[in-house]
Formats: sequence, structure tokens, C-alpha cells
Amino acid sequence: MEEKRLNVAVLGCGSVGSQVVRLLTEQADDLAARVGAPVELVGVAVRRLDAPRDIEVPEGLLTTDAAGLVARDDVDVVVEVIGGIEPARSLILSALENGASVVTANKALLAEDGPTLFEAATKAERDLYYEAAVAGAIPILRPLRESLAGDKVTRVLGIVNGTTNFILDKMDTAGSGFSEALEEAQALGYAEADPTADVEGFDAAAKAAILASLAFHSRVTASDVYREGISEVTAADVQSAREMGAVVKLLAICELRGDQVAARVHPAMIPRSHPLASVHGAYNAVFVESEAAGQLMFYGPGAGGSPTASAVLGDLVTVARNRLADTRGAGESAYADRAVLPMGETRTRYHVALDVDDRSGVLAAVATTFADNGVSIQTVRQEGRGADAQLVVVSHGATDAALSSTVQQLRGMDIVRDVTSVMRVEGGDE
Amino acid sequence: MEEKRLNVAVLGCGSVGSQVVRLLTEQADDLAARVGAPVELVGVAVRRLDAPRDIEVPEGLLTTDAAGLVARDDVDVVVEVIGGIEPARSLILSALENGASVVTANKALLAEDGPTLFEAATKAERDLYYEAAVAGAIPILRPLRESLAGDKVTRVLGIVNGTTNFILDKMDTAGSGFSEALEEAQALGYAEADPTADVEGFDAAAKAAILASLAFHSRVTASDVYREGISEVTAADVQSAREMGAVVKLLAICELRGDQVAARVHPAMIPRSHPLASVHGAYNAVFVESEAAGQLMFYGPGAGGSPTASAVLGDLVTVARNRLADTRGAGESAYADRAVLPMGETRTRYHVALDVDDRSGVLAAVATTFADNGVSIQTVRQEGRGADAQLVVVSHGATDAALSSTVQQLRGMDIVRDVTSVMRVEGGDE
Repeated sequence: MEEKRLNVAVLGCGSVGSQVVRLLTEQADDLAARVGAPVELVGVAVRRLDAPRDIEVPEGLLTTDAAGLVARDDVDVVVEVIGGIEPARSLILSALENGASVVTANKALLAEDGPTLFEAATKAERDLYYEAAVAGAIPILRPLRESLAGDKVTRVLGIVNGTTNFILDKMDTAGSGFSEALEEAQALGYAEADPTADVEGFDAAAKAAILASLAFHSRVTASDVYREGISEVTAADVQSAREMGAVVKLLAICELRGDQVAARVHPAMIPRSHPLASVHGAYNAVFVESEAAGQLMFYGPGAGGSPTASAVLGDLVTVARNRLADTRGAGESAYADRAVLPMGETRTRYHVALDVDDRSGVLAAVATTFADNGVSIQTVRQEGRGADAQLVVVSHGATDAALSSTVQQLRGMDIVRDVTSVMRVEGGDE
Repeated sequence: MEEKRLNVAVLGCGSVGSQVVRLLTEQADDLAARVGAPVELVGVAVRRLDAPRDIEVPEGLLTTDAAGLVARDDVDVVVEVIGGIEPARSLILSALENGASVVTANKALLAEDGPTLFEAATKAERDLYYEAAVAGAIPILRPLRESLAGDKVTRVLGIVNGTTNFILDKMDTAGSGFSEALEEAQALGYAEADPTADVEGFDAAAKAAILASLAFHSRVTASDVYREGISEVTAADVQSAREMGAVVKLLAICELRGDQVAARVHPAMIPRSHPLASVHGAYNAVFVESEAAGQLMFYGPGAGGSPTASAVLGDLVTVARNRLADTRGAGESAYADRAVLPMGETRTRYHVALDVDDRSGVLAAVATTFADNGVSIQTVRQEGRGADAQLVVVSHGATDAALSSTVQQLRGMDIVRDVTSVMRVEGGDE
């Protein structure tokens, strides 16, 4: 065992890959002590040899032949930080087939086609670790998979996209509108030129699928996740949340409902007293509820080259230790095989703000519409403004279909001039 | 492997043990699926067979012969939740010698004599896991040991004692004095009749030793940890903290200082904007700073039978999986072997409030005393009150010895009528 060394190949040398390469070099002595054998970087696959990079890759290690690198028979661990579906998927499958263990940060691939990868890892009897795929540096997958393995997780609420949290936080603290806050996020490098993946919730939905799969020992893919982004969130929504002591966050919500799993991503109002409410800027946090442990929260930087590399390296140490001991960690756990609850049947609560005629009978008519749909009302706030009035209704828990149909009927009522804000409410009692 | 089952013995059936027994029974099917083999409870050692218990222990499993139980050759995993030094230590050592893996929640024993236990585990080639020993249900040891294994942790700040956090939170939110808040904590069951272990910081110091050992890959024992409790914290201290936008918390602080480790427990003022400041009531949280990941926080219930049992069961699943795979997890990592920095040489900052004569030259004299000790001042606030004035000084970073000597000299000065509050300041810039 003293003679053994672990050879590592890194696929991709962008913001994460370059930090992985840096840490592998700078922390070599500590890594060797923690793994129990030297960890050696044997190759870095890139698209262009002459692209500008944040770091200097040691002489002779760069290659454009990623397929050739993962096919080498002296590679023990492959780190995939290219991202996207292809060629990442083929490279990971090839690495596993060739007997390497894999560490990846690829949320999109895991959320779309995780089962294929997990089956390949099981067949090859190798590890496939992916802590960096959700919430960057925050250790959340390992705690879910291992620390809570003796408990029953009932709900996961995550702020898992830093871009949207930055934008919503800005709208809350500075009173900005969505476009203005997005522009600031872009100027500061928190949002891409094409911000769709973040702003429309695709990134968060991929993470929700991964979280739900782990938390509930089932297979949940990105297409199972209901998704709404934040581009429709208005300054009025944020103000309305503020008036009821709440704040708007884009949440990834994974819940156990009877024998089924609900997984969804949408903006929601949460009480300011909730621990997630104080997650500011581009930070991420994941709030976990379980039967025995109660309420836990994990907080930290959800993105960035260096934090994400920290998560990759943590996995690398575990995977390398397993290789040395000729064993593997726990693989995919999907024994519970729970079905996904359709969004319409998922229970939630709605906040609805209406401009209505200011005359007697209006409140009764609105309340009747809620009641007709089987939705019970928790609070109503009414403010007269001359000829018209504003009515803010917060419902008790009901199915999303019933709530959605209530809003549709409200929109069709003569006395309702406008529905100015509709948003789900989470993080409190039903 | 299908035929194998894992036999578990539990030592102790108090608030934690009874919940471990309950979960082992209630979650048997899930545990079997997650471990890969049935997990069977084969014995529960108690002091008195007829003591009242929260749960019904299955017929025939209770025994008063703990030594006999751990000596059985069919026990695969021993869960120790008796607490205290003896007989817990002898029982754990005997269990390891007999080939069982061990899960324990025993912070006092680990902090006093961890190395003996770790060496026994290494010799026996068995696991010794202890997530429940620090911060109850919060997964913090596993993230430190595994998730951050590829990173360099530089500081750990923990609120790791729920009793003292409840008391200090009460003093802050309700303006109570220490005795009043302690009485309320006792009435609500958050504090023991003899609150010494919590209030004087012994419990937190044990946890600091365990955290420092893991974070810095070195051996730190309870006797290495500088310790001050909260019994001297006054309503005036809490008020003074409030005036400077801070809050008083009992912190377990573990820091890397050059090649040395500093580990200490004392009340400290932290800015209200710090994530730890919003940890209320009896909740715990551990804030971790590392070079690559940046700032992380782990939050949750730090005590209680059921949350602590969740952490025990998580370890039990890992240890049981390892037994099935005929392997073991990472053992003690003390390769860095760092020395412990004496408290006097540890850098910190002081908040000092003084009643002084209200005449010219006083501020200059006080400032000179700081300067003579090589301590630089960050802010001074002065409030005249007729014949006397109050002076509140916050220093920049300096060694604790220099700060302590400054305060001693201030106490001896004619113009200083009284030193009304002295407290360290943490969680900000130096």
C-alpha cells in the first residue's frame, strides 16, 4: 500500500477545473496524508491547448484528446468538470467501463440521465460521486446520503441558485425591479449574458431532482420537477411579501406526500423568521426537515470555481481512499421507488392580491369563489382607495389545481379589476 | 451477503438510547434497505431493569450486564450512549477488542481520552464513529472529515451548547439578567439542576477539542482548550453589545495560527450581521471557514433524544455497510500533529467599557495604556454623564496576554472608577 499512488485525470479546465488542478498541486502533501497514498495529476483534457487559463497547468499534462485520456489504463479517478450532456456522458461512461472511479459536478447530466450513470458505476463496481453538483461548496449530498441514512427526511427546501437569490435579494433590499436587478447581477458577474438557465429555474430544477432522488431514495429526473422561474416576479410582489412579513425566494422544494414525492421549483413567499429568509446575495442554503433530527440548515457559497473545487476534492479524497481499500462507497439508493406527485395534486398555499371595486358584497363574492373551489382562507387584508380597493388573500393549504382554478375564476369576475400578484407561500404552517 | 445480518447492542437507554432503540425498531425495513442487510437489535444494557422508560424495549433484550453484552461474539456494532468516562471507556475498548465496530455520542470521553480509543479502533481494524458527540443532529463531523478533506480549514466557530445559547438569547431578547434566564432555562428543561457543565463551558470545551482535532488533523484534548463560561456575563454586557450592533454568544473557537492550533471557549460579542448571530433559543450552529470553500454554516438542534439518535443511526448505517463490505471508514487523522497555541499568545480583540472621571486628558490616558501594551484601538465611544463618563473601547487584534494586561492596568488607574464590561469580540475583521 505504501508503493501505491492514485492517478487522477481532470476533464475540463474552466473556472472549476482550473481550481481543481491548483488544489491538487498546492495541497499534494495534505491530500497524500489524508488519502494514504500520493495523488498524482496525470492529465487535463481541454478543448483548446492555447486558451487563456487562470492557472499554469504543469508541462505535458494538457491534452485535447479527452477520450484518449479516460481510456488510459493507469487512470484511477476521473474528475469531470466540463458540464453539459455530451461529451460528458460518454466520457464518464467510458471512464467507468475502463475501471476508473468518477467525481463529477455535472448537475444537468445527473438530473437528466443519472440512472444510466449509476447503473454503469454499479456494473463497474466503481464510485460515482457528485457533491459539487448541488449547492457548490456546501456539503449537502453526503449529509443526506450518509448522516441522515438512519432518519426519515420529509422535506427539503433549498435556495440552490445564487443568481436568482442575488436578484431577489436586490429587489427586496433596494426595491429594484426585476430587469434592473438582473442587469446589476450581470454587471457583477453573478448572471450570464443569457440568464435563462438560472432565471427560468432550469438550474434549480436539476438540483431539485438530485436532492429529491437522494432524500427519498427514488429516481426523480429534471422532467419530473415542476418549474417556474422568477422573470415574472414584480416589485409589487416583493412589496406585498414585505407587508405580510415575508420575503420572496426561488425555492427548490422536495416533499414526501404520503407515498409520493413532490418536486418543484418556483418563487415563493417565506416568513422573514424562517432561517432561509436571511440567506442573502448569491449564497445558497438547503433546509432539511426530518422526523428524528428535526430542522437542519446547510449554508454557504453555491457556486464559484474555488468553492466548487473544494467539494470536488472532498469527493476525490473519499473515492481515492476507497480505491486504496479496494472498496466502494454507497451507490445509488432508489429502493423506495416512489412515484412523483403531479403538481396539480401537490398541496401548497397561495398569496393573491386583487384590485376590486370598493363596494359592499365584494369580499363575500371573493370568499365564495375560494370556498367553491374547496380552498379555505387564512387571512384577508382589505384597503380602500376611493372607487377601488385592494384585497390581499392568503389561503390555507390546498391542492395547486384548486388554487390555480380559484385564481382563474377570480380573473373572470366583474368586480375584480385586476389580479396584481399571485404567489405560493411556503415555510410556514398549512 | 443476502444471508448476513448485522447485530447491534445498545449501551444505555436514557433519552438518547431509548430513541435509538425506537428508531432501530420502527425504521427496520428502511435501515435494512440502506445497509444492504437486516439490522437486528440483540441487547440493551441498562443500570436498572425496572427503571421507567419512554419506550418499550422488546422482550428479553434488557440486561444489566453491559460487560457481558459487549463480550458476546455475535455483536457486530456497539452503540454507546451511557456518557461519562467510566464504564463507557472500558466497554468501548472491550467492544473493539472483541471485533465490534462502535458508534458513540460520548463527547466527554472523546475529548479526554480520544487517542486511546482511536488507537484501539485502528488496532482492531474496526470503525469508531461519533457524529452525535458534537452538535447533536447537525452533520458536522462527517463534513469536516470527508467533505472538506480536500480543502484547508482555517477556522471553526461554533455555538455548540444549547443551554447557554438559550440563556444568552433570553438575556438579549428579554433583557433578563443571567440568574433569571438560567432559572427559566431550568424550568423549561433546557438546563440541569446543576448547570455547571453547560454554564461554565465544560461541555462546549469538550466539543471544541473534538472539532479542533478533526479540522486540523491533530490531537487536541479538553485540557488544551481555554475555557470561560457565561456566569459572569451581565445584562450590561449584553446591552453594551447591542449598542455596538453585536450580540453575545458562547463560542467554541478553533483556529489555525501559523503551524499551531488555538482552541478556546468563551463568551464573545459577534456582529448581528454574522450568520451565527441569528441562531436563537437552544439551537446550535457551526460556522466553518476554509481556504477554497469559503464560509459554510451548519445549523440545527444540538441536543435532545430524538435528534441525537438521528446522528447515531446515520453513523450506524455507515458502520454497518462497512462491516458488510469488510472494510472500515477513515480512522483518526492526526498526521499534521500541530501544537496548541497558549491562550496568552492567541490573537483576539477586546471590548472594554469603563466608568471614568469626566475631565480632559482621560481619553488620552486610557489610549496611552492601550498603546503601551502594543494594542491598537479600533473605536472609542464616549458618553458624558455629569461628573463621570462612560468610555467604550474596541481594540484591533492583539494577543490575549497584551489585552489582558491592558485591562489590568486600566483597573489600577485613578481616573478609572470601574471597568464595567470586558469581553472578546469575534466574527469580524481584525
